[in-house]
Amino acid sequence: MTEPFDAVDVIVAKRDGRRLPDAQIDWVLDAYTRGVVADEQMSALAMAILLNGMDREEIARWTAAMIASGERMDFSGLSRPTSDKHSTGGVGDKITLPLAPLVAVFGVAVPQLSGRGLGHTGGTLDKLESIPGWRAALTNDEMMRQLEDVGAVICAAGSGLAPADRKLYSLRDVTGTVEAIPLIASSIMSKKIAEGTGSLVLDVKVGSGAFMKDLDRATELARTMVELGTDAGVTTIALLTDMSTPLGLTAGNALEVRESVEVLAGGGPADVVELTVALAQEMLAAAGVQDADPAAALADGRAMDRWRAMIAAQGGDPDATLPVARESEQVLAESDGVLTTLDAYAVGVAAWRLGAGRARKEDPVQAGAGVEMHVKPGDRVRAGQPLLTLHTDTPERFARAHDALAGGVVVEPDGAAGARPLLLGRIAAD
Amino acid sequence: MTEPFDAVDVIVAKRDGRRLPDAQIDWVLDAYTRGVVADEQMSALAMAILLNGMDREEIARWTAAMIASGERMDFSGLSRPTSDKHSTGGVGDKITLPLAPLVAVFGVAVPQLSGRGLGHTGGTLDKLESIPGWRAALTNDEMMRQLEDVGAVICAAGSGLAPADRKLYSLRDVTGTVEAIPLIASSIMSKKIAEGTGSLVLDVKVGSGAFMKDLDRATELARTMVELGTDAGVTTIALLTDMSTPLGLTAGNALEVRESVEVLAGGGPADVVELTVALAQEMLAAAGVQDADPAAALADGRAMDRWRAMIAAQGGDPDATLPVARESEQVLAESDGVLTTLDAYAVGVAAWRLGAGRARKEDPVQAGAGVEMHVKPGDRVRAGQPLLTLHTDTPERFARAHDALAGGVVVEPDGAAGARPLLLGRIAAD
Repeated sequence: MTEPFDAVDVIVAKRDGRRLPDAQIDWVLDAYTRGVVADEQMSALAMAILLNGMDREEIARWTAAMIASGERMDFSGLSRPTSDKHSTGGVGDKITLPLAPLVAVFGVAVPQLSGRGLGHTGGTLDKLESIPGWRAALTNDEMMRQLEDVGAVICAAGSGLAPADRKLYSLRDVTGTVEAIPLIASSIMSKKIAEGTGSLVLDVKVGSGAFMKDLDRATELARTMVELGTDAGVTTIALLTDMSTPLGLTAGNALEVRESVEVLAGGGPADVVELTVALAQEMLAAAGVQDADPAAALADGRAMDRWRAMIAAQGGDPDATLPVARESEQVLAESDGVLTTLDAYAVGVAAWRLGAGRARKEDPVQAGAGVEMHVKPGDRVRAGQPLLTLHTDTPERFARAHDALAGGVVVEPDGAAGARPLLLGRIAAD
Repeated sequence: MTEPFDAVDVIVAKRDGRRLPDAQIDWVLDAYTRGVVADEQMSALAMAILLNGMDREEIARWTAAMIASGERMDFSGLSRPTSDKHSTGGVGDKITLPLAPLVAVFGVAVPQLSGRGLGHTGGTLDKLESIPGWRAALTNDEMMRQLEDVGAVICAAGSGLAPADRKLYSLRDVTGTVEAIPLIASSIMSKKIAEGTGSLVLDVKVGSGAFMKDLDRATELARTMVELGTDAGVTTIALLTDMSTPLGLTAGNALEVRESVEVLAGGGPADVVELTVALAQEMLAAAGVQDADPAAALADGRAMDRWRAMIAAQGGDPDATLPVARESEQVLAESDGVLTTLDAYAVGVAAWRLGAGRARKEDPVQAGAGVEMHVKPGDRVRAGQPLLTLHTDTPERFARAHDALAGGVVVEPDGAAGARPLLLGRIAAD
């Protein structure tokens, strides 16, 4: 087969700061999926994109080409509007668990295609798999039926959506090209657009535990994704939220399910409730639902009923006892004062090392492992008081978790960590 | 085996504009040679180097690491000083052929390790292989003996010199990362330093037929290479020379050997003679030879004698008839005027398409194919007068050669192409 372009010409164009024509973008992603463009060529192109950027039209075309590499889903046959949420990933971010059933209460279908954790951030599927019997893999038919019947589904993304993205993501991971905003934005949005949701709310995390450490870069990423969704006909808005300290009081699979159930029962940590309600309001507004009161649906048990139905529909037992790690160990305050720092990245790495996360895709995770927090930044503490409890099935991991936490948990005698706002910004289409 | 670094960290450092520490440079090239750093990682690093650069110390260390990947040669046992020449490549550049025996006349050993052509520039070994019986492959012992006996050798570089460079060069060729000055300079100089020459004269070409199209970039490359050689203890100087029009009146393998023999016989085109003499003077001065008169050695037959000995020592018959292509076709002037343009790149591509060059390493070349020029820029021509003669064994190639020449051969009624200087600059160590 004769190819219409040469990969070197495409690389050189971007290397020299030129705009890539639509036909070259379409070809290079298709040819990469077919194996005609080699990994070493795509990685050089990715580096050139990272350093020289792409404009709005290029990113939109790149995203469209990734969507075209695979199948598209279609929710237009559903009797309900659809809305989806995507978080760029953080520590203790279990929001999807209470959020999906909460939004479904108001007649909106929530098709939440999720992934597994890698590195210091947890994965939604890993968390739910700590519920006995629950299964992540659904057929498209099963998913559609559950959306019609229950209104919410959290399941594994099929391999048919944007295969070019999957191949490119693995490559970026080993070639220092993960941090390119055009590539991050198109990776996320290609899957969300291919999934066929009618509206989308993005939770773009900012801070030590997030992919984006500073607000400027996070804002640029959020704006790029909102533009991509809008240009593709998906009502898209983004919230910028703090990830300098973990969300809630738990980081770890079963620990986070337990905390999510507390929120669904009308309790739970204030920050998790605040963000769940804020995202629910955005999703409901984006889906065209007026005058909904998500806080009330948490308080009166409607969200919990929907959660139980959602878990049961995927084989899970919502009444089953959650796994508990075999061993635990506490981290105590060494002095009186105020907790000024509880660093999200440090806690995330500690949970990962305790067994809650994985270093490679094929590694198993421990359901009960993780970090339980007893205080949050701004709280007064006494010497000897427990700050954290570490959980693991494999106690030889405690030492590595303590190492990860060094410098990340700070008590200062005269400290006064002003309450950091959780919501840092909101970005909608112009 | 545990590796001391992670390739991603090295890539990210250069991507973010940081200086690479010596230990990381040493490791990444060694690990790439061993296959531990993958092609897709090295190509991302090469792109980051191309776009973010390397400083003088980084380039020197990169070069040293490439040298360390293989064997080094040693000419210190010879009774003569050594000097070598390297051209960055052009069209009709047959200078090595008369130059090596000419310099040897004055008691300097010239160990000229050469390559084959790829694309629009010819290769010295391809040219010499048009001489019946001549062979390019010598053992190190044969090379040393010939240097001692004849004083000049032109042969294929062994595969033991800088293997990291060979692997990296092939990768750069397909990933749009050829044009990085630090990588070009280290690629050339690693082989020349590993070869062990005592002095080196670089002929850095500038213009349409050269790798470097403008004088600023060529000057930067020349300065980088002179610094690298000097820092490694090799007396190194560079001439910047014009490659906007071909050197001499021939481009093609046997055609260029014939022209070289004319120069060795005291005749030949003025530009070929001028550059041969200029480079010989630089090589002799760099090797410490005073008061040599290379022009006289061309005129009185001493250079020709040395040529005949050099060819015969490698199995060639200096009296054999050179191959002639089976078919030829002329390009005629369409109007009266002055030849204002005879573009080096156009002529190079035409010669390549006629069969003188190759598109892939494994392609054969035609000994007799190429372009013979009857006029040079600045010459007056008459309508109907032959400007070029095209030669090939495969006449179906004529059409593609004419296409390549379109726009590259320009006659203007009132044109006055001022004689362009051949020597554009000279760069020596500070």
